[in-house]
Amino acid sequence: MKNLLIAQSGGPTVAINATLVGILQAALTSSHIKTIYGAIHGIQGVVNEEFIILNDIMQDTSTLDCLAQTPAAALGSCRFKLDDWRKDAKLYETIVGILKAYDIGYFIYTGGNDSMDTVCKLSEYLNAIGDTSICVVGAPKTIDNDLVGTDHCPGFGSAAKYVAVTCQELERDISVYDTPAVTIVEVMGRNAGWLTAASALSRLGEGVGPSLIYICERAFDVEQFVKDVQTKLVERKAILVVVSEGVKDKEGTYISEKVQSKVQDEFGHKYIAGVGQVLAQMLRETLGCKVRAIELNLMQRSAAHIASKVDLEESKMLGMKALNCVVEGLSGHMVAIRRIKDTPYQIEYVAVPVSKVANIERTVPLNWINDEGNDVTKEMLSYLTPLIQGEVYTKYEKGIPKHLILYHNK
Amino acid sequence: MKNLLIAQSGGPTVAINATLVGILQAALTSSHIKTIYGAIHGIQGVVNEEFIILNDIMQDTSTLDCLAQTPAAALGSCRFKLDDWRKDAKLYETIVGILKAYDIGYFIYTGGNDSMDTVCKLSEYLNAIGDTSICVVGAPKTIDNDLVGTDHCPGFGSAAKYVAVTCQELERDISVYDTPAVTIVEVMGRNAGWLTAASALSRLGEGVGPSLIYICERAFDVEQFVKDVQTKLVERKAILVVVSEGVKDKEGTYISEKVQSKVQDEFGHKYIAGVGQVLAQMLRETLGCKVRAIELNLMQRSAAHIASKVDLEESKMLGMKALNCVVEGLSGHMVAIRRIKDTPYQIEYVAVPVSKVANIERTVPLNWINDEGNDVTKEMLSYLTPLIQGEVYTKYEKGIPKHLILYHNK
Repeated sequence: MKNLLIAQSGGPTVAINATLVGILQAALTSSHIKTIYGAIHGIQGVVNEEFIILNDIMQDTSTLDCLAQTPAAALGSCRFKLDDWRKDAKLYETIVGILKAYDIGYFIYTGGNDSMDTVCKLSEYLNAIGDTSICVVGAPKTIDNDLVGTDHCPGFGSAAKYVAVTCQELERDISVYDTPAVTIVEVMGRNAGWLTAASALSRLGEGVGPSLIYICERAFDVEQFVKDVQTKLVERKAILVVVSEGVKDKEGTYISEKVQSKVQDEFGHKYIAGVGQVLAQMLRETLGCKVRAIELNLMQRSAAHIASKVDLEESKMLGMKALNCVVEGLSGHMVAIRRIKDTPYQIEYVAVPVSKVANIERTVPLNWINDEGNDVTKEMLSYLTPLIQGEVYTKYEKGIPKHLILYHNK
Repeated sequence: MKNLLIAQSGGPTVAINATLVGILQAALTSSHIKTIYGAIHGIQGVVNEEFIILNDIMQDTSTLDCLAQTPAAALGSCRFKLDDWRKDAKLYETIVGILKAYDIGYFIYTGGNDSMDTVCKLSEYLNAIGDTSICVVGAPKTIDNDLVGTDHCPGFGSAAKYVAVTCQELERDISVYDTPAVTIVEVMGRNAGWLTAASALSRLGEGVGPSLIYICERAFDVEQFVKDVQTKLVERKAILVVVSEGVKDKEGTYISEKVQSKVQDEFGHKYIAGVGQVLAQMLRETLGCKVRAIELNLMQRSAAHIASKVDLEESKMLGMKALNCVVEGLSGHMVAIRRIKDTPYQIEYVAVPVSKVANIERTVPLNWINDEGNDVTKEMLSYLTPLIQGEVYTKYEKGIPKHLILYHNK
């Protein structure tokens, strides 16, 4: 029997704690696990030895249910990227020293692209020093859905459901007046348009949904955009237009760039919010009608009250899969979802070498965008539809959802 | 037996269709009502004779449930304000002529302040010409909660629940990192801070909620604001700050004014969005830490999927009350809610003369704001808490809520 360490990293989603629940359920019923440690603030918490013990907190099912419906990262997160171990072996020695001091044989790290890079480097280092006593496995999560090696990522289905339902509701809202109006909704996803595409799912109901959808994988032509809007305004008085935050022109320049500061995040990612505002201002000047820009902002990654049941269930299962992988001695892998078919929706849980995942962005295939570049195809809808199915019956107390908080940040 | 006319007006809410359902339920079981007409686009639809017949659509309970959970205004809305009848008697003659042509004896108009003005003027005109054959009654609705004569307004409780739950989720989201950050949430409400105050309800759960809340009824001091933020950042690394869209300085100038266009809406209301962005930019320059502004935008008035059960039930009951009022011969009144006590929450449904309602804004009492002007008091929480209670079990189909659409806008 050895100890287990769990940590969470990267941008929050509403499914990351469901994966934690899955890991805990599998660990608490495993004969291989003694103490379950949670590191606070990801790999940074490992370095700082900020650990909490999770065995006792998880006594009853209702606590676990509560944790699974809590958004963000119950163990805290970080945006800390490890240097190459050949360059900074000292940091790796420190980390491995701490893991050994706590008798940790299994380490599961939940996160996105940058976190899988950490899993990759740490497992490569352990391999290089010939240490097989610690198994490191990654569990995916990102609302951007841009990890390779998995059909889709935990957190994405719930964010997609939020975007679909919100666009459905917004389309109702903007359609009440008898006057021309354009409402632009800006959706997250960095350089991947998956979440923007999910706005098309709002058409599964009675409403009209977005009239135009611009996915960032396709070069964005400002003049064509204005023409598209003008054409749609002839058909309908009030239209909803959905745009990826990361749309770029054919030279690869972000459309939003002119109003953006040159701030970059710790990993050199460009700060790319604001395209909705830029396009709205341009349309106001060109069309002279009412134009509003709406940014779905952090709500799209934190709206746990409208999570997808499929997403949360799969996220739990991936947590269980991750625990099974490490106790079986697998290291340097990421657990993943392989889709068998769309209808009826069928998947299986697999593990893929994390070296084939880290630092690659999985973007939308161009043939899943229509020829005009202003909507998605049937293939995209078939891919997306199963991911938003099912509702989580959130537990409320005093009128607001019941969350579980594992530690309080100062 | 006479015919009934129903119309909806003003900004959408998620409860306006619940009031419509209440009216329909009462009308369909009344022996006084023959044909039920719905005017498309409020009073404008009356003038244009854009009527649909509602008797047949409402055959079963499930259709009514579906309508009650549909956001916005199923009959469409308008922002059309009647001139004084002494100035433009011709328009009033036209409207009354149309009502008589359709044998309408009862007219229920659902809306906010401007709509109550329409009810007031039309009933005064009918009174002035000595016509008692048409009864006109208003049913309130507004997420701003700024109508006098009623304890609170339909649509407000659901918007308050949305704001509370969203702030709870956002606070979880921003608390995951170990780095200083300020997140400013801008909330609607025009010149009333009720909806902003509802953000405090996010503290009913396990989370910390907003660290600072600025209600627009209290003069906003920019320097004090910066000091408040600095003080709170010493206690916690990541803080949530909630601000009314309509905060003004002590001279009465909107804080957002410097970056706003001078656009006014049809009623001369100032366009007052954007204060979150203004304050965020200022804090970035002053504090140098990460600052994000979030505008809850149209989501706060259209998020039917997280409606308050108390709100929707009361909205239905007010619709029933309105129908009972008109068939009893009452005219020139608005149906309203009178609160008997907070705990256990108890109310009654009443009717108040609409002349005492129209064109007056009910703002937050200054003694419900704390001395520092950066939070709300216990009295405010006692007032707000009952209004967000209970969840509506939204019906979903294909992963998104099932809505009922009465007509399609072109």
